[in-house]
Amino acid sequence: MKRIVILGSTGSIGTNTLDIISKFTEKFQAVGLTANGNVDKLEEQVRTFSPAVVAMADQAAAERLRTRCKGLKTTILSGTDGLRQTATLAEADLVISAIVGGAGLVPTLAAITAGKFVALANKEPMVMAGRLMQEEARKRGVRIFPVDSEHSALFQSMEGHRVEDIRRLILTASGGPLWNLTKEQLRDVTVEQALKHPNWKMGDKITIDSATLMNKGFEVIEACRLFNLPPSRVQVMVHPQSTIHSMVEFVDGSILAQFSVTDMRLPILYALTYPDRIPSAMHFPVMDLRHLEFLPPDMEKFPCLGLAYEAAEAGGAKTVALNAADEVAVAAFLQGRIGVDHIPEVIREVLLQRKLVSWNL
Amino acid sequence: MKRIVILGSTGSIGTNTLDIISKFTEKFQAVGLTANGNVDKLEEQVRTFSPAVVAMADQAAAERLRTRCKGLKTTILSGTDGLRQTATLAEADLVISAIVGGAGLVPTLAAITAGKFVALANKEPMVMAGRLMQEEARKRGVRIFPVDSEHSALFQSMEGHRVEDIRRLILTASGGPLWNLTKEQLRDVTVEQALKHPNWKMGDKITIDSATLMNKGFEVIEACRLFNLPPSRVQVMVHPQSTIHSMVEFVDGSILAQFSVTDMRLPILYALTYPDRIPSAMHFPVMDLRHLEFLPPDMEKFPCLGLAYEAAEAGGAKTVALNAADEVAVAAFLQGRIGVDHIPEVIREVLLQRKLVSWNL
Repeated sequence: MKRIVILGSTGSIGTNTLDIISKFTEKFQAVGLTANGNVDKLEEQVRTFSPAVVAMADQAAAERLRTRCKGLKTTILSGTDGLRQTATLAEADLVISAIVGGAGLVPTLAAITAGKFVALANKEPMVMAGRLMQEEARKRGVRIFPVDSEHSALFQSMEGHRVEDIRRLILTASGGPLWNLTKEQLRDVTVEQALKHPNWKMGDKITIDSATLMNKGFEVIEACRLFNLPPSRVQVMVHPQSTIHSMVEFVDGSILAQFSVTDMRLPILYALTYPDRIPSAMHFPVMDLRHLEFLPPDMEKFPCLGLAYEAAEAGGAKTVALNAADEVAVAAFLQGRIGVDHIPEVIREVLLQRKLVSWNL
Repeated sequence: MKRIVILGSTGSIGTNTLDIISKFTEKFQAVGLTANGNVDKLEEQVRTFSPAVVAMADQAAAERLRTRCKGLKTTILSGTDGLRQTATLAEADLVISAIVGGAGLVPTLAAITAGKFVALANKEPMVMAGRLMQEEARKRGVRIFPVDSEHSALFQSMEGHRVEDIRRLILTASGGPLWNLTKEQLRDVTVEQALKHPNWKMGDKITIDSATLMNKGFEVIEACRLFNLPPSRVQVMVHPQSTIHSMVEFVDGSILAQFSVTDMRLPILYALTYPDRIPSAMHFPVMDLRHLEFLPPDMEKFPCLGLAYEAAEAGGAKTVALNAADEVAVAAFLQGRIGVDHIPEVIREVLLQRKLVSWNL
């Protein structure tokens, strides 16, 4: 029995993880859940899964949940401290880190420091403090597994092979909903347009990041930190069909590619069962491989990707700044305060700040 | 320094292996070579690589080689015994088994029994006596690596993953030069037509086997024996581009596929360097993945594949008979004595013999 904590249980990764847990109750148990402020959903999850502990980042929300769950055995914590306590729960074997944005860093790092294996669904912790997390994981003898489909594909393709034999990682990108627009059209993009991701249903922030290719930029940084490779060894290829989830090219010229049906539950399942697998009903019809396209990304139309490479090369404070600037810029776009083409401009300006001291996370 | 013996050094796998050895003289040394009767080529190889021992199956050829190589340090052996002695050379670390047809079995098995790691380029030994070879390898603590591109692809895709987590292997087949012909047209196929393989340049026997899909049938049996899986877990897909060399589908629905430039030296290189890899200049342009087709094989037009599945299920004497009958039938076709459509008929008749006792090799 693997005992699981989910940081961010009411989001899309969180609910998908609970969906898997509910299907394999003899293998997994949800012992801890955290959410930001979605009281309705967390209450439902508490009643379904009876976790030992849950925590809400929002104090008032936690208070409401306490009232609603009176009489239940679940302990309800709140605030950053509550999140941290849930992330480090003594009985937990694996912590799924799925909190949107930079807020996931502190509890995720706490989990690692407490000696928990971590499955990372949010890339921000790795972007902000990947080196620190890996160093901590090494010290504690635990591992960090990727959960997003691209890094899971890389992880699966590398498994059993030596990192030093890798020529490059090929991260695929759908291109997002704005891929075919001209530079001029990009200026007038509405929030609705940018939120229409062609292949994956995800939260708002990550969908906008997909539209600007910043998400792919974060994934480049995440891949560098997860697999200990320089940015020059991580290449992005636009692959509009999102069929091949990513590939690893080895020094001898051999390439391994991973694919499957486009369902988040698959990489989640692998992170939960690793190093084993358990049967699922998911089946990819190989005959559908027929129409594939692979194109180099247009770095001029999508400057966020280039900014991410710059930050990845520089490391340290630059990746933290990249992430923070992007969070603020995307929020401003979602509120209709700036255009989608201003997002990279905001980020570039922040990255140019001389005050960005060179510390290495 | 890895010391290599090549059984069948004058064939296409043999010369490709020597080409690699000549490029990495600090890593590999050819210590033993064997050939059937090609004196010119073996003499050239003796002069270039100065192996300790060579052997020729043909006694008269060996005699001629001795005359030509007088004064050289290489010991020249002959006959089955000479092949066996070369295959079990004390100083050898790895034996490349690349003798065409069933003749490879005895020296290959001798190599395993002598505790040598074996890289198998010919599938006949596995088809004829796969279980025996694997049992012997287990006893001696050695491994058998595949060298042909499909099994190398499977091997690379499975490396680091558990065999029990495999849902099925997907062996790709180019379909061969006769793929698009009607049943009627198949009757009039000339030897020249059948020898025109669309993607690989190989010897005559294997090229005809590719045209009848018997080669793929042998590969199904080889895959079963190499990876210890039942025939029902090995599926053949016709993939005319031969881009994806093969795939492994895991129980959870995840698929790993291997591809590279179409060059035999790549799987040979991997077998030579395993578990490491060494850099090659080979580079597959990922953008060329665009046009791929995967189709189920037409078992009615190409009955050899079905016969191979039958033999694989039955095991034992049936696979030996399958191989022997095919050797005879293909030779008859190459000599113009029977049509290509008679090959499966000959084999079917042999497989139906009641005298095929059930012993399990």
